[in-house]
Amino acid sequence: MGKVRFTQTMSLDGYTAGPEQTRKEPLGRGGEDLHEWMFATRTFRQMGGDESGETGLDDERMRRWNENIGAHIMGRNMFGPVRGDWGDEDWRGWWGDDPPYHAPVFVLTHHAREPVEMQGGTTFHFVTDGIEAALERAREAAGERSVSIAGGPGTLNQYLAAGLVDELRLHVAPFVAGHGERIFDGVGGIELTPVSSRATRHVTHLVYRR
Amino acid sequence: MGKVRFTQTMSLDGYTAGPEQTRKEPLGRGGEDLHEWMFATRTFRQMGGDESGETGLDDERMRRWNENIGAHIMGRNMFGPVRGDWGDEDWRGWWGDDPPYHAPVFVLTHHAREPVEMQGGTTFHFVTDGIEAALERAREAAGERSVSIAGGPGTLNQYLAAGLVDELRLHVAPFVAGHGERIFDGVGGIELTPVSSRATRHVTHLVYRR
Repeated sequence: MGKVRFTQTMSLDGYTAGPEQTRKEPLGRGGEDLHEWMFATRTFRQMGGDESGETGLDDERMRRWNENIGAHIMGRNMFGPVRGDWGDEDWRGWWGDDPPYHAPVFVLTHHAREPVEMQGGTTFHFVTDGIEAALERAREAAGERSVSIAGGPGTLNQYLAAGLVDELRLHVAPFVAGHGERIFDGVGGIELTPVSSRATRHVTHLVYRR
Repeated sequence: MGKVRFTQTMSLDGYTAGPEQTRKEPLGRGGEDLHEWMFATRTFRQMGGDESGETGLDDERMRRWNENIGAHIMGRNMFGPVRGDWGDEDWRGWWGDDPPYHAPVFVLTHHAREPVEMQGGTTFHFVTDGIEAALERAREAAGERSVSIAGGPGTLNQYLAAGLVDELRLHVAPFVAGHGERIFDGVGGIELTPVSSRATRHVTHLVYRR
């Protein structure tokens, strides 16, 4: 059976997104600054058909974010800005017709909805019976491959607090943000084993296992 | 002129000490777990006359914590558990007769007190006119060497927020603590340059410059 891992970009003080998420600013106000390391890589730019962009360690880590992942889990706010009922169900995620997941994505929500099949192998499934049920379905879909807890911070914190995460891949952006949504809030007493740590001028890549 | 740097051990979620500091637990409840990497090193154990302890990267970083430092600044809670007036002035720090600073130490306080001279070159000076005055005195004492902002978190945060820190050396312990005193609280919008990042099985050493 694969592992459960989460991959998250955060500021040095643990913020993973800015405040006030909107359709225009899915990462919240200032949240894009966190991900600058990613936007600079060749792998990211190639998704937009652009052959510029840097190679090197950041690019290698960017290429590997989805490596050996057979299913994803995300919170509803990561899927979109719609709150409450799904309404006319025209919201199909932030990522256009061909989202970068290429695997089943289980979205935690209190509001049932039929699965949404996108191009490229991504299907969004809506899970209303909690984090453990979502993980069970994701594991089943992933088979031998791993499950990625994709975010946002509230979802990561729930899985961490429940002791359900095997590996953390943190990309620490070199600034103190001071506001926004924070990982690790309400989580405590979790011991980890450092696996690796490497820095570039854009970001520090930390890997931990439980 | 030397730089202003701070060196701090913290948990992955930014806690630098446990809650409820007492004479028996100067680092607060559970705060010693944070510093386990340090206690394991040969350099630390040699201070107690013990020749056991590990060599390697953690030991090298432990040896270098005081390198080229000509003066230290600390908050009053780091100096001791006494609050308000100094009373009979018998409190002379946590560190015994020969504290590990071996240089002038400027203690931020609202309560004036005569300097306390210890063995080995450490003298505690009590500064009542704020962080900038303390830094000015520390710089003068340090000459060409650097000034270390020793802690605790409240003091670090004040210097960071005022833009007065040139270099951060963070030792990140591999656990999520969930409670205690936190660095970076109330500090925001500070961009840093990653200088280096190395991990051992005990701790991850991060160095940043402004």
